[in-house]
Amino acid sequence: MNENILGLIAGALTSIASLPQVIKVFKTKNTDDLSALMLIILILGLSLWVWYGFKKDELPIILSNAFAAILNLILLFCKLSFKK
Amino acid sequence: MNENILGLIAGALTSIASLPQVIKVFKTKNTDDLSALMLIILILGLSLWVWYGFKKDELPIILSNAFAAILNLILLFCKLSFKK
Repeated sequence: MNENILGLIAGALTSIASLPQVIKVFKTKNTDDLSALMLIILILGLSLWVWYGFKKDELPIILSNAFAAILNLILLFCKLSFKK
Repeated sequence: MNENILGLIAGALTSIASLPQVIKVFKTKNTDDLSALMLIILILGLSLWVWYGFKKDELPIILSNAFAAILNLILLFCKLSFKK
């Protein structure tokens, strides 16, 4: 497979992966089993990838990681709001 | 910040992010709130990143994504085993 296409598919998958998790949390309103520390580290890492993308001027890196960061920010917000 | 250092820190963070989630699942034996679909898409995407790393001959991409894929495989295994 062409490297660029491979990278695009890989990036698309790892970016949209959190979407079913967001939908699940919206449906169940349960976030007990989600690790807040995981979300925080992930958001930090994804934000650095966005910064990296800006420095390298690579739009796919910026967009895919920004999208994933937003999804995980939503999850963290739910985690903190739904706390019993 | 130097781009390579930035990329290394970003990669390290997004790789180890799942570790607190694995520890939490091991402790609580609860995976109800985790989305299996998220884990499956993530493992697929991370595996493609490993493949991409091999094609590009970039060891950091191979190692960081392989590590993250293993952590998420463990989570998926727990999700399927702990099902009530």
